[in-house]
This record gives sequence, C-alpha cells and structure tokens, in this order.
Amino acid sequence: MFRTPFISKNWMASDETPNNSEWIMIGVPFDGTCSFRPGTRFAPEQIRVASRGIETYSPYFNKDLDDISFYDAGELDLPFGNTQRVLDMVYDVTREVLVAGKKYFGIGGEHLVSYPAIKAYYEKYPDLYVVHFDAHTDLRDEYLGEALSHSTVIKKVADLIGFDNLSQVGIRSGESYEFELMKKHNTLVKSAEDFRDILSGIKGRPVFITLDLDVLDPSVLPGTGTPEVGGFSFSELMSYFKVLADSNIVGMDMLELSPFLDTSANSTVAAAKVAREMLCVASR
Amino acid sequence: MFRTPFISKNWMASDETPNNSEWIMIGVPFDGTCSFRPGTRFAPEQIRVASRGIETYSPYFNKDLDDISFYDAGELDLPFGNTQRVLDMVYDVTREVLVAGKKYFGIGGEHLVSYPAIKAYYEKYPDLYVVHFDAHTDLRDEYLGEALSHSTVIKKVADLIGFDNLSQVGIRSGESYEFELMKKHNTLVKSAEDFRDILSGIKGRPVFITLDLDVLDPSVLPGTGTPEVGGFSFSELMSYFKVLADSNIVGMDMLELSPFLDTSANSTVAAAKVAREMLCVASR
Amino acid sequence: MFRTPFISKNWMASDETPNNSEWIMIGVPFDGTCSFRPGTRFAPEQIRVASRGIETYSPYFNKDLDDISFYDAGELDLPFGNTQRVLDMVYDVTREVLVAGKKYFGIGGEHLVSYPAIKAYYEKYPDLYVVHFDAHTDLRDEYLGEALSHSTVIKKVADLIGFDNLSQVGIRSGESYEFELMKKHNTLVKSAEDFRDILSGIKGRPVFITLDLDVLDPSVLPGTGTPEVGGFSFSELMSYFKVLADSNIVGMDMLELSPFLDTSANSTVAAAKVAREMLCVASR
Amino acid sequence: MFRTPFISKNWMASDETPNNSEWIMIGVPFDGTCSFRPGTRFAPEQIRVASRGIETYSPYFNKDLDDISFYDAGELDLPFGNTQRVLDMVYDVTREVLVAGKKYFGIGGEHLVSYPAIKAYYEKYPDLYVVHFDAHTDLRDEYLGEALSHSTVIKKVADLIGFDNLSQVGIRSGESYEFELMKKHNTLVKSAEDFRDILSGIKGRPVFITLDLDVLDPSVLPGTGTPEVGGFSFSELMSYFKVLADSNIVGMDMLELSPFLDTSANSTVAAAKVAREMLCVASR
Amino acid sequence: MFRTPFISKNWMASDETPNNSEWIMIGVPFDGTCSFRPGTRFAPEQIRVASRGIETYSPYFNKDLDDISFYDAGELDLPFGNTQRVLDMVYDVTREVLVAGKKYFGIGGEHLVSYPAIKAYYEKYPDLYVVHFDAHTDLRDEYLGEALSHSTVIKKVADLIGFDNLSQVGIRSGESYEFELMKKHNTLVKSAEDFRDILSGIKGRPVFITLDLDVLDPSVLPGTGTPEVGGFSFSELMSYFKVLADSNIVGMDMLELSPFLDTSANSTVAAAKVAREMLCVASR
Amino acid sequence: MFRTPFISKNWMASDETPNNSEWIMIGVPFDGTCSFRPGTRFAPEQIRVASRGIETYSPYFNKDLDDISFYDAGELDLPFGNTQRVLDMVYDVTREVLVAGKKYFGIGGEHLVSYPAIKAYYEKYPDLYVVHFDAHTDLRDEYLGEALSHSTVIKKVADLIGFDNLSQVGIRSGESYEFELMKKHNTLVKSAEDFRDILSGIKGRPVFITLDLDVLDPSVLPGTGTPEVGGFSFSELMSYFKVLADSNIVGMDMLELSPFLDTSANSTVAAAKVAREMLCVASR
Repeated sequence: MFRTPFISKNWMASDETPNNSEWIMIGVPFDGTCSFRPGTRFAPEQIRVASRGIETYSPYFNKDLDDISFYDAGELDLPFGNTQRVLDMVYDVTREVLVAGKKYFGIGGEHLVSYPAIKAYYEKYPDLYVVHFDAHTDLRDEYLGEALSHSTVIKKVADLIGFDNLSQVGIRSGESYEFELMKKHNTLVKSAEDFRDILSGIKGRPVFITLDLDVLDPSVLPGTGTPEVGGFSFSELMSYFKVLADSNIVGMDMLELSPFLDTSANSTVAAAKVAREMLCVASR
Repeated sequence: MFRTPFISKNWMASDETPNNSEWIMIGVPFDGTCSFRPGTRFAPEQIRVASRGIETYSPYFNKDLDDISFYDAGELDLPFGNTQRVLDMVYDVTREVLVAGKKYFGIGGEHLVSYPAIKAYYEKYPDLYVVHFDAHTDLRDEYLGEALSHSTVIKKVADLIGFDNLSQVGIRSGESYEFELMKKHNTLVKSAEDFRDILSGIKGRPVFITLDLDVLDPSVLPGTGTPEVGGFSFSELMSYFKVLADSNIVGMDMLELSPFLDTSANSTVAAAKVAREMLCVASR
Repeated sequence: MFRTPFISKNWMASDETPNNSEWIMIGVPFDGTCSFRPGTRFAPEQIRVASRGIETYSPYFNKDLDDISFYDAGELDLPFGNTQRVLDMVYDVTREVLVAGKKYFGIGGEHLVSYPAIKAYYEKYPDLYVVHFDAHTDLRDEYLGEALSHSTVIKKVADLIGFDNLSQVGIRSGESYEFELMKKHNTLVKSAEDFRDILSGIKGRPVFITLDLDVLDPSVLPGTGTPEVGGFSFSELMSYFKVLADSNIVGMDMLELSPFLDTSANSTVAAAKVAREMLCVASR
Repeated sequence: MFRTPFISKNWMASDETPNNSEWIMIGVPFDGTCSFRPGTRFAPEQIRVASRGIETYSPYFNKDLDDISFYDAGELDLPFGNTQRVLDMVYDVTREVLVAGKKYFGIGGEHLVSYPAIKAYYEKYPDLYVVHFDAHTDLRDEYLGEALSHSTVIKKVADLIGFDNLSQVGIRSGESYEFELMKKHNTLVKSAEDFRDILSGIKGRPVFITLDLDVLDPSVLPGTGTPEVGGFSFSELMSYFKVLADSNIVGMDMLELSPFLDTSANSTVAAAKVAREMLCVASR
Repeated sequence: MFRTPFISKNWMASDETPNNSEWIMIGVPFDGTCSFRPGTRFAPEQIRVASRGIETYSPYFNKDLDDISFYDAGELDLPFGNTQRVLDMVYDVTREVLVAGKKYFGIGGEHLVSYPAIKAYYEKYPDLYVVHFDAHTDLRDEYLGEALSHSTVIKKVADLIGFDNLSQVGIRSGESYEFELMKKHNTLVKSAEDFRDILSGIKGRPVFITLDLDVLDPSVLPGTGTPEVGGFSFSELMSYFKVLADSNIVGMDMLELSPFLDTSANSTVAAAKVAREMLCVASR
Repeated sequence: MFRTPFISKNWMASDETPNNSEWIMIGVPFDGTCSFRPGTRFAPEQIRVASRGIETYSPYFNKDLDDISFYDAGELDLPFGNTQRVLDMVYDVTREVLVAGKKYFGIGGEHLVSYPAIKAYYEKYPDLYVVHFDAHTDLRDEYLGEALSHSTVIKKVADLIGFDNLSQVGIRSGESYEFELMKKHNTLVKSAEDFRDILSGIKGRPVFITLDLDVLDPSVLPGTGTPEVGGFSFSELMSYFKVLADSNIVGMDMLELSPFLDTSANSTVAAAKVAREMLCVASR
C-alpha cells in the first residue's frame, strides 16, 4: 500500500523473516517471582527501541550485525499470573526453535525463565555446558517459600545438568551456604585466564550462556532490581566474551534489565550493546 | 540506656503501645499480582517515613492526629511468593485486631489484600457496607488467568457481601462488561450529593472503606502503577470524605502507592495526608 | 514456525493488516525544528509500548478499540537532517493513505509535520475545516530565522486554507501579535458551548483535527517540550471531544509528547489514552 | 571586542542597567532554616535560565515584559552559615533599592528572607499592607528551637506591621493554634471576591506581595520542599492576580522553588511565568 | 496481641534489644551546615529501609550480620535549627554508649557530627587514632564564615587529637592550603600497601573510623551532595577495609548519603552494604 | 548602586573583563544536527551554574583557577534553525578571539561546532595539530543525508588539516569503514604512553584540543546523548591530560553534555571539573 519507507518494528538489523536465520531472538516479559524491585517485564520492548540508536558494528569483535543472521520474533504472550504456565510456554517455544534447526536467544524478563529454556536444550544436548554470568549465586533451594524463583534458578539448572557442567562468572552476592556450594563444586571462575582454561577443557561441547545483566557493576548498568556494588566494568565483561569467541555456543539468554529503574535510559542502551556483542560472539 | 531523645520508629503521632488504641495501622507490603507496574510493596515503610514531615493537624476536619488513638504496628512479614498464604495472613491479623476489640487500618500494597480483611469484617458484621474509592472497577472475574488479582478484588467482595452493599466512587477505567455490571447494580456514585443520599440510607450500619489511591488524578498522585487521567483533585476527595464524617466506619485500608514511580516523592507525602484524613474522618 | 503465542508488535487492538481499516496510524518521529526541549521523535514508539498497558474500552464514549477499525503502520523512516524532505515524505504518505480510501492518523513528532498532511487533505477536500488543539498559537511567520518550524505551522495552514476555516482551542501562549491575529480572525474558541455553535455552523464539512498534547495542563502531561501552565484537565478536553462526536472527521494527528521529559511515564500513558479517545470520537 | 552577538546573562527582557528601571530583581539564594527538604538556594539562577525559554507576552494581562522596566541584579553573595548576617544583608540591599527610588523584587530562596525586606519597606511605608500567598500559615512563634525560620516569618511580619495589615491567601497547612490565630485576626482570604472587597478597603495604600510558590498545587509546581495537596491551579492564582492589578504594589518577592526536586524542570518554568505575571501585575 | 508475624522496624539483623550488643547504631539526621546540596538528614531512615533488601552475608569477609552483635537504636530527635545543641546531643549519646561499655556506630547526616563523637572517644581513649575516608580534606579553618561546618570537621579533630594521630584516605578535593596541610603532616595515605604499614605502626591502639561516603566514586554512589570524580571503586574501598580487619576498631561513623539525589536508589543500597562491611570488619 | 555584594554571573573565577585574559570561554548552545537524544544546547549555562559549587584548586596539576587568566564571555546568540549561519558565527567569533591575541575555549553544544573554530585556527596556524577525545570516530562522510553533522565533524577536520595532523583518543564506537579509516591513517592512540611519544614528535607545534565528554564512561558522565559503555574513568582521562601539560595548546573546546539526561546533576558537575582541568593543563 505504501511506497514511503517505514522503520522496521523489529530489532535493529533483524532479518525480515525467520526462515534463514541462525538465531531467533525471543522476548520473555515475565517478572512474577522478582523479590526486590520488579519491572523486568518491560525490558524486551525497551531494549528493542534502544537498539535503533546504537551502531551495528562491534569494534570488540570487528563484526557487524548486518552480517549476522538473526530474527527478532517479538515477545511471548504470557499468562502473567501463572508461573508454571509461563515456564511451560518458554519450554515450548525453545523446543520449537530447536526443532526448526535454529538457536534460541531469550531476552528477559527475570532469570527464572532460563530454566525451561536450558531444560529444552539439555534434552537435545545431553553434554550441554552452562556458563552463568551474574552478581548472584542463584543457588537457593527455595526463596520466600517458593522453589520456582529467580533466586533458585541456577540450583535447578545444576540439579538438572550436574554442577560439573556449570561455570559461574562475576558472582559477588548470596547467602553463606550458597558460597559454600560454589566452593564445594568449584563453579566460580576467578579470572578471564581461568575461564580460558576451563573452556579449553570442554572444547567442542555445546554451550548455553545465561547472562544476568547485574553481572555488570551498578555504575555501568544502574537499571536492575537488585544492584550489587563491586561488579564488572564493560571492558572486563568483554575480556570474558573474547574467551568465549571460540566456543560452540548453541543457545543463550540475557536477563534482569529493569527499565523503570533506568532513569537516564543508559542501562537500556548498554543492554542493547551487550545483546549485540552476544550475537557477535555467538554467531557462526 | 539513653537519656538522649530518639525519634519514634512508628508513624507520626502513633500511640506507643496498641493497648488503648482505637485503630491499628498495619502495613501489607504485597504486590504479587500487580499487572502493569509493580512496586507497591515499598509503600507502607515510605509512607511512614513521609508521615514525619507533615503536620498532625487537619484543617479539613479541625482535628489533630495527636488527639486520635491509633497504633502503627508495622509491616506484616509475608511469604512473598505465595499469594494464598499472604491472603490468609491478612485475614488472620484482621481477626486478631477485631478480637482485640480494635479497628483495622491496612496500608497496602496492592488492592487484592483488601479481600481477606473485608471477609474477616463481614464475618463479624453481616450488615457490612463497603465504600470503594478507585479509578478502576476491579470487577473482573479473572485477570491474566488468575481469579485472585488486584483487578478482581471488588468482584470477589461483591460476591461475598452482595452488590447492594457496595458503593463505588471515582471509577473511570475498566472493561466494557465491568461498566455494565456497575450499571446493572447501580454501584457507581455520581456526585458527593448522591453519596450523601446513599449514606443516609444506610445510617448506623458498619462501613468499611477501601481506598485505591489512584482514585486521585495522576497529576495529584503520579506514583501509582496504573495511572488513569481524569481523576479527583484532593479537594474533590475531601468533599466525599466530609460526607463520610457521620458514618460508622469500622475498618478501612489505603492501597496502591508505588514509591519507585514517585520521582519527586510528592505522591508519598500526599498518601500520608490521605491516611491522616482517613484517621480524622473515621476516629470517634 | 511457532504455535506459542506472541504479543503483536503493533498498537494495542490494531488490525493485523491495513486492508480493511478505516484509519491508518502513522508515526512521524521528527523533532528537527523544536526550539526549546527536543525529544518528541521518540514519542510514536513509546506511545505504542504504553498502549499495551491501557484498557481498550472508553467509558467516555462507551466504545471499545476492539470494535474500531484502525491499523498501526509504524514509523516513517525519515532523513533526519533534511526538514524539507521529511515534509515531502509526510505529504506523500498522507496522499497514499487518501488514495487508498483511508484516513490518516499521524502520531508525532513535532507539530510542523501537520502541515504537509493537511496540505494533502486540502487538495482532496477544498472545504476542509481544521480544529487546532494547542497551548500555543503557532502563528508566527518565522521562528529563529526559519519559516518551517513548529511555531509557524498553523500560520502556514491558515495561509493555505484561510483563517475562516480554522478554530483554535486551549491557546494560552504566544507573542503579542499572534494573539492579535487570533482576535482579528476570531479563531480562538472560548468554551465548549461556543465550540458546539461553531461546529453546528460547519455541519457536514470534512474536519481535520490537529492536537498538540500541550493543550493539556503540564500537571496532566508533564512530558512535553514547552510546558504552559493553565491548561486543560483531561475532563475539560473530553468535554470538547464530546462536541466533536457528531463531526465528519476525515483526518487527524496528535503531537509533541517528549518521552525523555516524562520521568514517571505517566504522560506517555495519558497520550495513549488521548489517542484512544481520538479514535473513539472519529471512527464511524 | 566581539561583534558576534551574545545572549544576555540576565533574566529574559531585563534592562541592561538598573539606572532607569522601576523594579530591581534580586536573587536571595538562602535555605539555611529549611526544615524538610532544602534546596531553594538554587532557585534564582535556575529561574533565570528558564526565563530564556518562555514568552515575554502575558495573555492574562495583555502586557509584554519587553515593555516593563526591570533589572535583574543577580544573586546576593551570602555568608551561608550565618542566618542573622544573611538577613542583615537582605535588609541592607532592600534599603539600597528604596533609597535609589526603585522597587524590590526578591527571588528566593526560603521564605524567611521576606522578613528583612518587609522591615525595610515598613520603615519607609508605615501604612504598608502585606498580601501573603502560601500553603502554610508561617505563623509559628518558634520552629525546632529557632525564632528565625521559614515557619515563623509571617508571625514576625504580623508582630511588626500588625495583623490588621495582613491578608493570607491559599493557606491550607499549619498547626492548630496557627489556624486559630488566622481565625482570630480574620487574615485568611476565602475567595477572589472577598479579596476584591479587602483590597477596596485599602485602596491606595502601599502593598507588599510575598508569594510562596507552594500556594500552587503540587501537581502544578511539584518542585517545592513541603508540598501540600489541595492548592491553587494556575488559573485560580491568576484570578487573585487580576484583583491585584489596581493596587499600589511597591515591593514583592517569590519564594521556595526547589530545583533539585523538580525532576521535569516544569516547576522552574512555571515559577518563571509566575514572576512574569507578578511583573505584569505590579509594573506601572 | 498478634500471633501473625511482623517485620522488625529495626535495621536488618539488628539485635532486638541493646542489652548484649557490641555495637550501637545511631542515626544522626542533621545537615544544617551543608554547603552545596543538602538532604543527608534523610539518610539514616532510608538506609534502614534499604538494609531489608540486601544479603546478610559478606563474601568479602566471609561473615554474616546474623552473627554480629549490633543494635539499631534509631535516629536522634535533634533540635534542627541549633547546630551547637545538635553537637552536644551527639556528644551526650556517644558518652552514654561508652559508659554502657558499648561501641558507637553513627549514621549521618553530614560530616560535622563526627566531631562530638570523636571528642567523647578521645576523652576515654587518649591514644585514639582516627582513620578518615573522604573525597574532601575537610581541613578548613572556617567555611562561609562558620567554624562549625562539614568542611572544617577534620581540622577540628586534628586540633584535638594531633595530626600525628590521623590518616586520610581517598582525598581528592580541597583548597590549595588544605593540600599543603596534608603534605606537611603527611596524613594522606597513598595506597593500600602504605595503609598496611601505617596500621602496623599503631598496632593495638584504639581506632575510630569516620567514613564520608563520597570517598567512593560518584559513579558508584551518585547520591551525595558534593560529588567528586576520580574516587574509589567499591573493590578499592574493600582493599582498604581488608587492611583494617586486624585493627582495634572502637568506634565509627558513615556519613553524607543524600537520598533525594539518589534517583535510582542504588546509592542507598550501596551505603547499606558499606555499613554491613564496616560491621563485618569491626566486630569482634 | 549597591554596596551589598553580589555573586558574579560569570563562571567561577572568571576574570571580570576580557581585556587581559589569556583564554576566552564561549558557550555555543547548538544541537541542531544531534541524531539521537538532543539537549546539549542547555549545557553552557548549566556548566556555568555548576562551576560555582566546585573547588578552584586542581590537585591533579597543583594549580588554582584563581591564578589562571580566563574570561567567560557567555553564550552566542545563535539563529537556531539555520545550521550554516550558526557555523559562520562560531567561525567569526573564533577569529575575533584570535585577532585580539587571545585563545578560544568553546563550551558546546554539539560537536559540529568544533569545525568552524578549528578552521579559523588552521588559517592562523597552518601547522595546527588536533587532538580529538571522543567515544565516536565522527569520521562519516554524511549522516542521515547531511554532510554537516556531529557525526561527520572530524572527517571534515581531517579533510582540512590532513589525517597526519590528527590524533584520536578514547574512540570505541562507529561504523566499520570509520574504524578502517582510523587504522589506515593510524590516528587512534592506544595508550597514554603512545600519546607521550606522539606529542614528543610534534613538540612546539600549536595544538587544538577538541573533547567530546562522552570519551568518559557513561558511569562517570551519564548525561550525554549517545552513551557508549567501555569509556575512560576520570583518572584515565587525567593520565592523558598529564601528557598534554607540556604542549603548546592554542585552542580547545568541550562538547556534548546533555543536562536534561543528567538526572542527578553529577554529569554537569563532572563537566565543570573537566573544564577546570583543561584550563589548568592549557594555561601558561
């Protein structure tokens, strides 16, 4: 009907259809178990809006989003009041992505939604390895009376895939027994150099990256619900990403931006850049 | 241990113990079913902090909080992830207040927590009349797949006490069928004059006031999750409060302030004043 | 590819295709001539996001967006640095809408973009009547050395269609000679009653509504670049809209929301509601 | 040195020198006794900055600042830590203005600084009448152990000039005994009509206007330290200003804007407009 | 009266009574001499509120607040307008703490309130050593005409205990002569290694820590009145705290958070964590 | 007329007249080509206001602004809607500064205004060397259809003076071909050490510094239109400034602060300090 050009409603540089895309970006606007300051449900659409203001080119990896094959499918239409059904839907859509021979890139939303996605991946890849970027251990058995929570999600993942197949990066907050659990299983990565050694040891295995944006310092990314001082600068995060560049990344998600706490909107712009770099590091 | 004076940690002008108090103020920091922009769980403590900056004297009712008998009991320690147990606890504490021969003044939190309080009141007062101040009808049967929601709470109240025992003030948003329901049962109050007539008709009956702060216009109270233009000015609200002054108010609650959305903190100050006026209008 | 449901990327309740739609909603993200505090270019996408959080039902007109036929076409892809080409594109797309037998609903962006749309309408409807809601006269001949500016737009419209075919509502700021111009041509509407008389006099003629959101008081809509105290409450605006309900509205636009100045996001929500009411009042 | 034009560092439309000016605008950046939320010391410079973004023309009085004779002298250089010396300096500068045959227009800062200015005026005009616009009575004898406070200023004024020579407009907050004091001396103005009668009774007498900006509703002017719901809209304030237009205004001040609480900057813009209207109503 | 559980109104993990506590936390809500952007008076209560959202466990010291013996006594009820009486009260309450055989942990408010606390300590401990964390030297003789100011406090401390018994950490702003004073007395600590040497030299002596939160970089803690770029990251601060772990800390305070400047609330959360780490490093 | 002292309306420590000043500070309030989030036009006046709250002494260079000879001339009165005329005026005023034997220190506004200033300098100094601090390459040939843009400014400078006479510091964002251009011409400075080598090679040549404030990390300076994570800390910037201390700096400017995005005002304070350090490093 129109010859006048319109801006795409998709993420910047998204493919126009998913047909030939390597990665499918899926928004998961859920924050129902968030304990402190909720609001992450608004993240996927605001990150999309912010993506239109950043460069497509990554000087860190000398790659351009225009050359990367991904499709922004939009946000899931979730039954907000029902945590279990939300998780089921994330599981279903991840499976649909896998069945189509594509890779899932979830944009949260709260961290709990990583669990069903990783579960779907684990069923396809029994040798799956999970790399967990976060400020928090997320290793509780229950939280405020609930087993399904953004504070228990990595414990549930570890119970599923085994602590041996998990690395945790950037952790600096949790309960005493959670830190003991990390120590016991030696999941905490101490430096980018150690990270390189660990990844060498699992060379070729399929890797799922789950990245809670609060792994960045609150000065870099203030717009998150449970800010923890003492986090990574963006450059430090990039030093870990560079280690990941040779890995066989088969799935990933990025979580916990809270746009209403992002008064300058800079956190949302930063999140869009983290997503860009994740696509750069993970695309073939 | 100290002779140096300290500021009370209670609400401004609160009694020091509940023993002789007419009203018991109880914070209910729950926002688990909040659909749009959560954050009301932080309201009770922030309203308490703000109370210390306002006058104790109400020029609207020529009363002073110093002469009013109320006790600030603090916030309930709620199992955040479990809606049903939260509601049970509100029910329990309301009963405890009633058993002690006192009156409940709940400070939310989200509107759903009114339901168990009103239920406890209804069991004591079978002729209970409920006055509902709100921007929203809250008359849905379910919301996003859940029957227990801040969008269904008044429907559940009406199912309990009967639509005949309900008046709704300030409503200006809802679905089509909710407005039809209000019309069918004639619950919507058109003006302060009509309100006077309605209250004359129930003279002497026990009244529970449930006040969603978004009944005020977002210009007056911007810090709320689902702002609805076209609401009351503070003076308009006071004109309804003046009508209430002769009623037999036996219980009340005030809900839905969202401090993180209150960038200037003026909404929190305004909420503290609404609470002050509610105590002035309701105390013997 | 997916059976799992996704949220539409369009405006709430938008038709899925434009084929059978009466109205075509088109974002015009331009603020290049904005004199004081720019930022309106972000409005169309943020109003779209906010639309997903409001009700579809209008209690003011007892209509539901679900029953209204409109299609959200998205934002134009504008050559930002070139004002004249931007205006040409708005003219082109408006003509494309008209040629398709549909009606244009522009979402700005700054007010200057109304001119090419009205020009396209005037070419189709030589008896076009324009109703201008605004805080500002917008009647300057030039502004800061430019004839094409959001402060000159209505003067250009009047030069095109004649002052006799223009009504201005809510004006309260401008230069002295602009107020004299309004007086001379008697374009300023004094009250909703006068407005009714004026519209009676043009019964049946095609009407274009151009609404600068700063017609609302800054307390109701703080997020705008040149806030002017003393504006309309939402109820006052609705009293004018009710007068419009019988008119033959053939085109319209809504302008000047500035999301970065909207710290609580309430202005964006209010703008989404004004758009909803415009659709309600204007749809067949 | 430069032929290239620069923007004046003065208030918009200020005379270039004070030599022939009727009014001298003087900033008084003091908030040392502010009890709740300080910050008014930043108001004079921010109002100056905001003045450059508003129109010079007042449609309320059909006057233009370009035709009004006033000079912006800048801010006093105050010894911040010493309240008494600050007050002495305000007294001195007011006398200097009066000795020069000019009129003082103070821009606060906190309300206490009105006292020394009014004292200097009272010494020149023993029949001085003071009109006090405010949300607060400011009639305390002492506040937090201090007699010199922004909560005691009008009591000190009344002790000086007599309660018979004082009118108070917009008051809605204070302690019980302060309201009794207003009642006893009948200083509270009930309506614009009453205000007209009062001013008729003092026709020709010299009038000093002291305007605390919190007389406006916090929705209109959120950026103030002790916001009080239930205040004037801008139009209501203008209805009082229109009554003042025939008075013999010899001095005035405007106080209590707090720019750091003005997150959208709209309050500062509104304050600049109130100052514009004060100049319009008071200039010969 | 209630069996339903309530949240404590005290700081997270505070003892329920002071009887057996090692540390007594006392809020000092005073900002009367603050020169630039006041507001620190609101810090103690907001840090208390924020404490409820953070973990009790410190991974930096592998300690848990649940195992630390401290009591949150609340805020002093200060005569705001009278600086000398405020200081007297802080002196009195510090002495009361010392007489009871306990340790004082002051939560400011502005830095001036450290002086009377240190004075009381010095009277008990003539060999007291003071460690001063700050962005500013605070070594002025007077500030804006006042000897009692948050800019003179450390000069007054040094005059009392002698410059030999003072170390200053993180200083990066002041007047020229203040830097010369630091140089002359060699009080400025250059690195964590130097700090270790200094503390070795005073092994066993009683230490008072006075920590102005602006020692942290404004990116880490934006909510402070006089932000100074170039400050410590949280990790750098922790490297100094680790040096302190073997010291005989007998008293401490933490100052200058300004909640109204903390738009994201992240500074308040960070301050609560600094307080947690101070308790971890200082408790037996 | 007044003996009472007033605060200067100029920048802190500015000379009272330009007659004997080495440096002339000139505000250039233009943001007409700004692509993403405009608002830098308000920077010069807000930085001036903020300058009054910082120290005059720089501990980094052990210099005091009171000893530095500079004059704050105020902001240019620009014809906002006409980019070419704006550039002409900046060119003219720079020439006027040079003709008077003084040095230009521009305060933007957007980066495009550096071009005419550098052009005027290049005409006087054919051996001019330009040091460019920025997050962005600014090396585009055109941007959104315009050759004159804040994204093309350094390309235009390089076309004028030659790439051999340009160093770029802190760059981390741009399009692929812009990075290739930097590589080809070897303009990107890798470290402060390399910077020292480069400056040694041009010893004695006249240097113009153009500093886009987004060279600092958004955590340090959030108030800028196109924030780019991964930038300099303030200390890193100072390490480059120290290298500059021996250079023959003949002109400079500082750009791209956006006060409306600076919600805590800390960015504006930081910008005032960067300007202070630039004056310290550049003054004789």
